Amino acid sequence: MAKKRVLVVGGDGYCGWATALHLSTLGYDVAILDNLIRRHWDATHGIDTLTPIVPIERRIAAWQRKSGRTIELFIADVADYGALARAIEAYAPDTIVHFGEQRSAPFSMIDREHAVMTQTVNVTGTLNILFAMRDLAPEAHLVKLGTMGEYGTPNIDIEEGYIEIQHNGRRDVLPYPKQPGSFYHLSKVHDSDNISFACRIWGLRATDLNQGVVYGNSDETAGDPELLNRFDYDGLFGTVLNRFCVEAVVGYPLTVHGAGGQTRSFIDLRDTVACVELSIANPPDPGRLQVFNQFTEQFSVLELAERVHRVATRRGLTPTIEHRENPRVEREAHYYNAKNTSLLALGLQPHLLEDATIDAMLDLAERYRDRVDLAQIASHVQWAPGARARGASNLHAPAPIVPPDSTNLTPLRR
Amino acid sequence: MAKKRVLVVGGDGYCGWATALHLSTLGYDVAILDNLIRRHWDATHGIDTLTPIVPIERRIAAWQRKSGRTIELFIADVADYGALARAIEAYAPDTIVHFGEQRSAPFSMIDREHAVMTQTVNVTGTLNILFAMRDLAPEAHLVKLGTMGEYGTPNIDIEEGYIEIQHNGRRDVLPYPKQPGSFYHLSKVHDSDNISFACRIWGLRATDLNQGVVYGNSDETAGDPELLNRFDYDGLFGTVLNRFCVEAVVGYPLTVHGAGGQTRSFIDLRDTVACVELSIANPPDPGRLQVFNQFTEQFSVLELAERVHRVATRRGLTPTIEHRENPRVEREAHYYNAKNTSLLALGLQPHLLEDATIDAMLDLAERYRDRVDLAQIASHVQWAPGARARGASNLHAPAPIVPPDSTNLTPLRR
Repeated sequence: MAKKRVLVVGGDGYCGWATALHLSTLGYDVAILDNLIRRHWDATHGIDTLTPIVPIERRIAAWQRKSGRTIELFIADVADYGALARAIEAYAPDTIVHFGEQRSAPFSMIDREHAVMTQTVNVTGTLNILFAMRDLAPEAHLVKLGTMGEYGTPNIDIEEGYIEIQHNGRRDVLPYPKQPGSFYHLSKVHDSDNISFACRIWGLRATDLNQGVVYGNSDETAGDPELLNRFDYDGLFGTVLNRFCVEAVVGYPLTVHGAGGQTRSFIDLRDTVACVELSIANPPDPGRLQVFNQFTEQFSVLELAERVHRVATRRGLTPTIEHRENPRVEREAHYYNAKNTSLLALGLQPHLLEDATIDAMLDLAERYRDRVDLAQIASHVQWAPGARARGASNLHAPAPIVPPDSTNLTPLRR
Repeated sequence: MAKKRVLVVGGDGYCGWATALHLSTLGYDVAILDNLIRRHWDATHGIDTLTPIVPIERRIAAWQRKSGRTIELFIADVADYGALARAIEAYAPDTIVHFGEQRSAPFSMIDREHAVMTQTVNVTGTLNILFAMRDLAPEAHLVKLGTMGEYGTPNIDIEEGYIEIQHNGRRDVLPYPKQPGSFYHLSKVHDSDNISFACRIWGLRATDLNQGVVYGNSDETAGDPELLNRFDYDGLFGTVLNRFCVEAVVGYPLTVHGAGGQTRSFIDLRDTVACVELSIANPPDPGRLQVFNQFTEQFSVLELAERVHRVATRRGLTPTIEHRENPRVEREAHYYNAKNTSLLALGLQPHLLEDATIDAMLDLAERYRDRVDLAQIASHVQWAPGARARGASNLHAPAPIVPPDSTNLTPLRR
């Protein structure tokens, strides 16, 4: 493999940091571009990662000591085109891996300001990267992190980005219809649409990775305290498996929102970094947006709670499971069957969610138990604040989609 | 019909002004909210409407003198939430008709700044309206102007917003897949996705009107010089039929971009205002986004040129048709069959594009012939500037969509 230059945008984050180190291990030239805003948001929202993480400069220095490899650092905001363009001109990447977005659904649902900020910052950052590629790096490959949450929970199988539709005797392969469930997830759909267009008109090449919920550590981030990855368990940025592990360790009930039948896609961080590398090594032809679904397994929220309950009990803990009112508006029982064959066909060897993985997460939670702040666990952000008080009746019902026939037959009301 | 209060956002524009007057005629209470930015963009881009339009305050005063009806005016920007919220609190609309967006594809393609501005301004404005409705007017009905251009040119029939998909033995009714052709059209897709979500989680009601290209004047805007509507023929905001009419009158070739097989949907402004009123009178249930395709006929660009050529020749003019290089990246020959039955079922009586309509447009072009600025006619905005020079080969080919099968089988390249 020819040595290649990869710019990891958002390389100070959970997935970005692990990806940067993994690519560096494999012999890629790696640079990180990050505005460090996530650390600032932690501070301004009174939350913190369970695991202590050191400043990015110390992380990179530790990696250099340990591996002998250099990672270049650009402290810059993708929303600032001038700074982004200077970095791309200076570094001349062959691949841009783009994790640099506001990535939390609850954060985007706090209020109007957070919704608008999430969409404008994410959309602007991705547009800036596309224009920078057009003008400064037209041969580069954009590997963009999307989310499985873009698809929602349709009543048919979820394909990888596109679906063949037969309709009235004709057929076409079209973008898979999306039904995202938060203003954050919507921002990723907007990005996907913008990237697809830019590929089509400018001949750019891009890979959209619709990723499931990520858990665990990578080989590079585990072990060394200066390389340690963040572990979010709070109500804003925390993920469900992290939260359950922390709850089990501190003797807090495993809190299942609603019925717990919400089924989602999941992936081990070791597989995330492998998938990103497989994508880098397999760019599409110019003009094409290829879409991979990046996950290895599907679980319902209740299944995950039961898994953690079982493993924790075996360790001598005494966890309980408690259903709480669901702050989100979402289906709590639904069909869910998503395809993930593309990355497997490229060679991904999945790390499935084994008891040992949950044990490792519980180990981590126990090691940093003193840092747990119970006040951070609850999800205070309501998808529909005050809606029940207003008597809205359709919430939590299956998504109210209007079939063409019924709208056409709406009686005149005048 | 109970008298209803309608806030027309963007009511100083071509469709918005005609809609405000038509609703006022029908007995609705009407207010206009507009930031007048379009008049500013005309100035800053060195363009002007063929027809002279008077300031909004004089327009509204003229309407009051003529009709005896008052239209309230809010000079405000929907991107400024405080100003928008104050207007909604003060006016308490039953319906918000939202035309208040940057609505030109070439304008959005000028450069990065215009692309980012178009998407952030349009998306933010619509998000602001949705949050204002949630908090200040939850029973109101949003009538949002979208565009038929959201759909692109799929190889199957275009339905109205949703499509039933049979897949692997299951079925669902899902949002119709969109393939918009500019950063402007993309912004409308982003809006549609955001509105659909807001209806679902907050129980709001909205109607998305996917409108074709509009031409002509309404009954209210024709005749009185102070009520006269704008007539855009320039390369940024002008529409194809307006441009052909001006070209025919001044003896400039009717300029067809590319082969001219590009087929689009069209609608007479008299039908636009009728469709908006039908939508206002027929709101969906709370929690629902209903989608209507708002057009009456389909024409290819070349067909339109030939129509104008024929009518102009009959008037003694000597028009010619000339094919120019297409500044856009789009299919120039394609299947196109879009449904428009919903508004017909609600009672729309279409004004089809008759020779008399073209004659009226040619009359207008002749009346204001002295105001024609030939320098404004050309479309200088390239969809892919420099792309041919870079040797991109896929431009103008059918949209390069990656079928799932072929991406899955991409060979390893390492």
